[in-house]
Amino acid sequence: MNAEIITIGDEILIGQVVDTNSAFLATELNKIGISVCQISSIRDNREHILTALDEASARADLIICTGGLGPTSDDITKHTLAEYFGSRLEVNPYVIDSIRMLLEARGVSLNERNIKQAELPHNCDILPNSAGTAQGMLFEKEGKFFVSLPGVPFEMKTIWCEELEKKLKELFPLPAIQHITLLTHGIPESKMADLIHDWEVSLPQNLKLAYLPSPGILRLRITGRTEQNDAELTLLMKQEAEKLKAKIGSAVFGMDDDKLEVIIGKLLKDNNLSLSTAESCTGGWISALLTSVPGASMYYKGGIIAYSNEIKTSELNVSPYTLMMNGAVSQAVVEQMADGVRNKFNTDYAIAVSGIAGPTGGTDDKPVGTVWIALASRKRILSNVYNFGDDRGRNIQKAAIAALFILQKELMCS
Amino acid sequence: MNAEIITIGDEILIGQVVDTNSAFLATELNKIGISVCQISSIRDNREHILTALDEASARADLIICTGGLGPTSDDITKHTLAEYFGSRLEVNPYVIDSIRMLLEARGVSLNERNIKQAELPHNCDILPNSAGTAQGMLFEKEGKFFVSLPGVPFEMKTIWCEELEKKLKELFPLPAIQHITLLTHGIPESKMADLIHDWEVSLPQNLKLAYLPSPGILRLRITGRTEQNDAELTLLMKQEAEKLKAKIGSAVFGMDDDKLEVIIGKLLKDNNLSLSTAESCTGGWISALLTSVPGASMYYKGGIIAYSNEIKTSELNVSPYTLMMNGAVSQAVVEQMADGVRNKFNTDYAIAVSGIAGPTGGTDDKPVGTVWIALASRKRILSNVYNFGDDRGRNIQKAAIAALFILQKELMCS
Repeated sequence: MNAEIITIGDEILIGQVVDTNSAFLATELNKIGISVCQISSIRDNREHILTALDEASARADLIICTGGLGPTSDDITKHTLAEYFGSRLEVNPYVIDSIRMLLEARGVSLNERNIKQAELPHNCDILPNSAGTAQGMLFEKEGKFFVSLPGVPFEMKTIWCEELEKKLKELFPLPAIQHITLLTHGIPESKMADLIHDWEVSLPQNLKLAYLPSPGILRLRITGRTEQNDAELTLLMKQEAEKLKAKIGSAVFGMDDDKLEVIIGKLLKDNNLSLSTAESCTGGWISALLTSVPGASMYYKGGIIAYSNEIKTSELNVSPYTLMMNGAVSQAVVEQMADGVRNKFNTDYAIAVSGIAGPTGGTDDKPVGTVWIALASRKRILSNVYNFGDDRGRNIQKAAIAALFILQKELMCS
Repeated sequence: MNAEIITIGDEILIGQVVDTNSAFLATELNKIGISVCQISSIRDNREHILTALDEASARADLIICTGGLGPTSDDITKHTLAEYFGSRLEVNPYVIDSIRMLLEARGVSLNERNIKQAELPHNCDILPNSAGTAQGMLFEKEGKFFVSLPGVPFEMKTIWCEELEKKLKELFPLPAIQHITLLTHGIPESKMADLIHDWEVSLPQNLKLAYLPSPGILRLRITGRTEQNDAELTLLMKQEAEKLKAKIGSAVFGMDDDKLEVIIGKLLKDNNLSLSTAESCTGGWISALLTSVPGASMYYKGGIIAYSNEIKTSELNVSPYTLMMNGAVSQAVVEQMADGVRNKFNTDYAIAVSGIAGPTGGTDDKPVGTVWIALASRKRILSNVYNFGDDRGRNIQKAAIAALFILQKELMCS
């Protein structure tokens, strides 16, 4: 069972937009046992779209197109698809209603262009878009299936999750594919590969391992595939995951789709504990991560972003003398910050960060990327220093993740 | 003059890696006047590579492949290219020397795998790689040019900058391509299309418009192309951009690669003004955006994340009575938050946000997505209410961007 992905839009071909839709679709298709044999990005151009459809359907059973469904004149996908599949465009009254409701909820009224978006090929299955006005479409031609999705990532993902995944599972007899992912922190990729080499080479043939690194986190994904017994595969995979865990123990902080900020939230909530933050160089990233979790207000009380030294003193009770003697990026200051916000907001825990994100502000002693992180609890204050390198954006990200890891470790131990 | 890009590697087709190489190459090719007509990602597979080369060279004059040049057994690009171009592989003594020097500088000595990498097709131009062991290659066949580059982004970029760009300019007579992008806020895509329809259809033939939407921001990109007079095109494009601006005036907040948080930073810095923030539902996103800009500490003093009502009262001086009578998501509370943080941090401006990010917490009166935003200056306090819909992540993003727009507008007017 093979698929191809076609992304339509000039913005990708001029390099203005990085095509993340294809990576999402490729990941999801692989998860349900559909291999992707090619991804093509092509122009908003009739001939080009027609050729690409022909070429792709010569190789694959399923072709998924994204993009080109907007209401503007450079979006020509729908008309070209209608031509390819010999369709009449018909206004679909149900779609008009759903677009009207969607727009009304946003305080916008229906206009002519929106009505145009409800004109859909008569011979497709509509894949409703609950997040936008461009509908998904599913066609069948000569035994091959073709899907068209909007290019806005959020809308494309919504249709995948709410409609398309289910549909594909109904349409095709798919092999069983299972994944177990271990989320690890603290062991770099090449060291990890050495550490688990013996286990990896002894894996059964139908199991495969992938290394998925991202800043601060390395995911190890075991993929298993069977045409026969689903339950047997589940058992086998669990056993292999346990063996892997035994090798790398404390580096594993979660499984599958777990997120660090969700794990921390659960630990705090379950133990009726509260948290506050004091951020300098991370400038709100830690609190933004924490509050991305629904229900965060149950344990996260708030924070101080102390970007200036004045505010470190006035709001967090950092001693001006300590600041003068040690500088803002120092163990003494970051510990006072954590202690200060914890006392002020009366929380069980507080995390504080002070560092040099860059690109300027570094010295020989404290180069760009130097970051102090402290954790204060009702019992004690811990702190650590890091150097995350010289990229501002990655320094901020890595410092925020490192701060959350310190908290998670403390919550696990106490 | 058309080009196609082929990225070779299974990791892209399983969604493990987002293909950023293509976006880089597409940007650079367009800059020098080479249009990219297709980008394809294909497997590490001999037949697939051969077919892709045939298909691409039927459409384009230049084909650039990346990936598959590593020393491991799944990297088969070089042998497949040698087959396609009828080449013998020969060890190149100059390349051996350069690989040896590169490795010695890293404290590593040459091994057999490295020597294999110096085996190159006898009938290609070598594009030396000063950043790694896999060399770039340039072939000519039946009047078409083919380039093969390593897949490691840093090495690919090094070869582009040091070798390939220069080479392509020598090989081809290139047209000039220019882009002007207007960044707009506040007019949805379909309304914008109506508003500028007359202007759009009257554009000269060599100019094209594209709509590039993202949460809260719509970019309008004019692309111009000429085979003749570069300066004339520049003038023509400026004139058309001015006409467009005249139509949508205040919706335009920046040009080309401008970022809202950078524009605001510049306005504050140039006028020696300071800013603080008080965030509830955005939970630190606004401050994270502001502090993503290098040098933000010159104007951004800090902020309070007041996730709980207690903290709204204790830190921002919001009246408990106002909170009780109006609820936290209300005009009165958000105005007190803005005023409170501005007074506390003694800044010229302050922005405050209070809303219901979701997924729970909505009521009939105040559904999920209801967000109040206030701006306080030394002169006055402004506030607005929004409804951003029902997705938590997007509510937070959109609220943060809307808050920055209110500030930008005020800074422009004062």
